[in-house]
Order: sequence, then structure tokens, then C-alpha cells
Amino acid sequence: MTWLEQIKWDQDGLVPAIAQERGSGKILMMAWMNAEALTLTRQTGHAVYWSRSRKKLWHKGEESGNQQVVHAIRLDCDGDVVLLEVEQKGGIACHTGRHNCFYRELQDDQWQEILPVLKDPKQIYK
Amino acid sequence: MTWLEQIKWDQDGLVPAIAQERGSGKILMMAWMNAEALTLTRQTGHAVYWSRSRKKLWHKGEESGNQQVVHAIRLDCDGDVVLLEVEQKGGIACHTGRHNCFYRELQDDQWQEILPVLKDPKQIYK
Repeated sequence: MTWLEQIKWDQDGLVPAIAQERGSGKILMMAWMNAEALTLTRQTGHAVYWSRSRKKLWHKGEESGNQQVVHAIRLDCDGDVVLLEVEQKGGIACHTGRHNCFYRELQDDQWQEILPVLKDPKQIYK
Repeated sequence: MTWLEQIKWDQDGLVPAIAQERGSGKILMMAWMNAEALTLTRQTGHAVYWSRSRKKLWHKGEESGNQQVVHAIRLDCDGDVVLLEVEQKGGIACHTGRHNCFYRELQDDQWQEILPVLKDPKQIYK
């Protein structure tokens, strides 16, 4: 079996892909990949995901310029989750203009925002 | 809406939950939670997942003793991925006896094992 065939794709042909920032170790985001997205990620060295909402390949940073340079691709024990070690260009992974997507934390039974907006999304996506 | 209702559960009533080790920042594993699992995680302070294969709640560490003490619960921008900051009891998150589940890395088009087995699974699960 090839390395791609060893991955357990779900019923939609996807796997979750976690992007972790090289150096800081912070989790930037989690998105989904199909075999083509992962192959392109491998080939180009830049993260390519599958957008479930738009139903198309999503070259991360194609609009914003905030690409993710991939330094390592790891697979979990069950073969159904991928972990990427990436360098986040522009220091902004989230479409809200924050460093990463996990900017809400449960405190006193409410989701509290714990990360600042670094750049107005209107300026990121023109 | 309550904090639970603000989460976008998938068609099976689940969300992916990433467990990140407090301190080291390493990703230990990714599993799934339903509303009951997340509620129990919140109430008990120990990670409880939903086992999709066994179709039942999975109190992490119930057999192995390797529980995860939860220090923070975060939610991503789309509200459909949960991130846990945990302390991993026993230093072993993976059922293979390794520190974490992401012990394979893509090198030369092959998945190479990059983490040692710290404890024989036969000794973990008696």
C-alpha cells in the first residue's frame, strides 16, 4: 500500500488535518483534506485543504497570502487524523484576523474571547 | 443559547476534540465528543470522549489509568472543533503505549515511526 492508501479516509473521502505552528506549538486550525489535497500539500510544501462548505480545494492563503509552509506530516495510530507542522505566513491563520482559530475559551459557562484581532478581515480579504 | 448549543455538532451529534498537552504543547490525540461527553468532561475535569467504534462514552484512562486532567476547553471560529488543554496522567496518551498518537511521520513517501513505545500495551491493558 502507498502512504496515501494507508490513511483511513472517512465515508466522504476526507480526514481531519490539524495545523500546529512550528516553534510555538500552538494549534492554528483544524480543517479537512481529501487525497488530492494531501497530495498537493505534499508536492507543493504548502497546506491545501478541502473546503466542505465550498466543495472545492482550498489553497490556504490563496486570497489572504497567509500560506502555511509544511515542515512535517504526521499520522495518528488509527490512521484517520493528520497533523501538520507548519510555518504560518503573516502570523494569522484564522479568517477572523486572529493568530489561530481557537480564540474562545469556556469560562463560567460562556465562550469568552481570549485572542485579539490582529488585522481587520476586510483588509485581509479585499 | 447555552455554551453547548453554540457548538455546531455534526450530523451524528459529534465534534472533533483535540487534546493538547499542557506545558509541552504536544498534540496527544484527536477523538470525538457528543454533548454528553463534553458535559461530563466539563463537570468532572477529566476528558470523556465518544467512542465511534464502540458506540459508547469513553472515559479516557478508565482501563489504563492514563486520564487526562482538563485545564481549558476552547472552541474554534466555526464552532465545530474543540481543543482541550490537558495534563496527561502516566505520560502515555496512545493505546500503543506511546506518548501520543501521532507517532508516524511521512519521510520518503513512507510512514516512519518517530516515537518509542514507553510501555507494552499488554501491561497497560490487563
